[in-house]
Amino acid sequence: MTEPLPPGSTIGILGGGQLGRMLSVAASRMGLACHIYEPATGCPASQVAAHCTTAAYEDDAALEAFARSVDVVTYEFENVPTAALDRIEAIVPIRPGRRALAVSQDRVNEKDFLSGLGLATAPYAAVSSLDELKAALERIGTPAILKTRRFGYDGKGQARLDDPSGAEAAFDAIAGAPSVLEGFVDFSLEISVIGARGLDGAVVCFDPGANEHRDGILHRTTVPAPIPSRLRTDAIILAGRILNALDYVGVLGVELFVTPAGLVVNEIAPRVHNSGHWTQNACLTDQFEQHMRAVAGWPLGDGSRHADAQMLNLIGDEMDRWEELASEGALHLYGKGGSRPGRKMGHVNRITPRS
Amino acid sequence: MTEPLPPGSTIGILGGGQLGRMLSVAASRMGLACHIYEPATGCPASQVAAHCTTAAYEDDAALEAFARSVDVVTYEFENVPTAALDRIEAIVPIRPGRRALAVSQDRVNEKDFLSGLGLATAPYAAVSSLDELKAALERIGTPAILKTRRFGYDGKGQARLDDPSGAEAAFDAIAGAPSVLEGFVDFSLEISVIGARGLDGAVVCFDPGANEHRDGILHRTTVPAPIPSRLRTDAIILAGRILNALDYVGVLGVELFVTPAGLVVNEIAPRVHNSGHWTQNACLTDQFEQHMRAVAGWPLGDGSRHADAQMLNLIGDEMDRWEELASEGALHLYGKGGSRPGRKMGHVNRITPRS
Repeated sequence: MTEPLPPGSTIGILGGGQLGRMLSVAASRMGLACHIYEPATGCPASQVAAHCTTAAYEDDAALEAFARSVDVVTYEFENVPTAALDRIEAIVPIRPGRRALAVSQDRVNEKDFLSGLGLATAPYAAVSSLDELKAALERIGTPAILKTRRFGYDGKGQARLDDPSGAEAAFDAIAGAPSVLEGFVDFSLEISVIGARGLDGAVVCFDPGANEHRDGILHRTTVPAPIPSRLRTDAIILAGRILNALDYVGVLGVELFVTPAGLVVNEIAPRVHNSGHWTQNACLTDQFEQHMRAVAGWPLGDGSRHADAQMLNLIGDEMDRWEELASEGALHLYGKGGSRPGRKMGHVNRITPRS
Repeated sequence: MTEPLPPGSTIGILGGGQLGRMLSVAASRMGLACHIYEPATGCPASQVAAHCTTAAYEDDAALEAFARSVDVVTYEFENVPTAALDRIEAIVPIRPGRRALAVSQDRVNEKDFLSGLGLATAPYAAVSSLDELKAALERIGTPAILKTRRFGYDGKGQARLDDPSGAEAAFDAIAGAPSVLEGFVDFSLEISVIGARGLDGAVVCFDPGANEHRDGILHRTTVPAPIPSRLRTDAIILAGRILNALDYVGVLGVELFVTPAGLVVNEIAPRVHNSGHWTQNACLTDQFEQHMRAVAGWPLGDGSRHADAQMLNLIGDEMDRWEELASEGALHLYGKGGSRPGRKMGHVNRITPRS
């Protein structure tokens, strides 16, 4: 299937959180319908999508009915169970493809892939036992961080090691799961590049943004990132290499550390990315539309930036200030019922003329 | 009710066409849910709204259940039957209010209202019989146009008179309905101003655009309109006067003729307007979000223009070129099943740097 999907086609989205919601809205602008697949009831995306299946990722009958009802499937998170993907792919294409998922679902696979491309990463070692962890600590040193190979996000499934004596406690903290020990990178700034690759192989990237975190969760992204134009170019070329190496179709987020020795890849996410939400109000085509264009086989849109932007995440009760925030910029709320600490409830894009 | 509706509230929308669809998408961005009321099944708005009632405007039980399920009601078209509005308003507020509807549902009321504000309109006379039409023709002269007082749009319910001898044929053409005879205005350009007024009385207007029609249907809107800045200011002040005189809450479209003697009001529409679709890609807050902010009692957003824009309507089979159009700008399609001559299927916003 290499022809673009005509208007009126249906795109299946695995996952009905805020990313699925914003993807669905972007698709609807182009006359494409969305069908959400999500285990939880009343999810944010179901409120704006034409169809929604509420079922587990282990429900084969529901997965197959879903796959038969759509023209292509994409996803809003990378940890979709492999068996569910197999079931769907037997019926309908999945974009971005399985290789991107295999690489990004597993931190060791991801680092091996990036190293194989000649890109710099933090020093790392696969760990599957306490002995391996101790050996890895000798090689990598401390401080270091032990992360589960799979299913980690927003700082979950991680344990920090400031001293080799903490090995046992760290291994306990991640419940002895297959993991990776990563050395710390001495960086001055974290930036991210949101890139897109079309079905025809065309690649476009949004301007890199600078990210600030709080408690392991993205707090703010500022665009343009305060980096020299040489680094900006490096970051975009690097994202393009990853997209091409994965024969990727869709939008990909690449988190990078800026170091004295150049750019170091922190991680990649095979989906639209929180640090790309600023594109909604500073670009003609935002990351959500760009992803849906790619997935539907459409030409990529114009993602050039017409303004400077600052995206501020609203975590937990930070959205209680919604009325004030609505006066300060473009307020995006996700339609989630209740706020709780650490839950992403929305974001605000503050836009200023291009500097 | 003067407090803003909190996120999670539900806005009812009468009418599920493309305007309802784009209003619903704008509301969802702000964490507000929409409930569409529309007699036709599978309407464009139902694909993107949290709830949809498919029922006639004469179905009292459905109207009441709808009204009880929402926090406020708005509409995407001005010809909602009065009895339906009465039924709803007994339960929940309608915004914009009934006065705006009473004025704009009837061409004679509208012209009387505008004249009463001291604004220029085309010469007009109410007509309810052939004798009155003949008398009106003597006063107004030809060419003139006979329009039904109610339910006319996109050139429907109209008959042109180039000569007084055509009176009978014209009266027959509109089936003898209560009507208004309008003289022609010698204008160089049609422009429109999209204005908004908040629940707190704040007024903001988008930059005026220049409109071109084909076969009585809007073909293209260009912003900025090629008019002197004095006229731009006049147009915005005039729109503000109308908004304030109606104690209006929401977005209003004002069509104006540019004549040697100044601005002449063609008509007003108490809703988001086709000639305001360019705001989706050239303003931080577009007309749809501005309307939903007003209706929900939120502060109005920043509607200043960051780019020049040209909005091109896609009528009938013009959307068959969707793939090419998707490369030329921001393509908006309405999710309508089949195209037929004269049917609005979508639009393209072509954006260029601010001149």
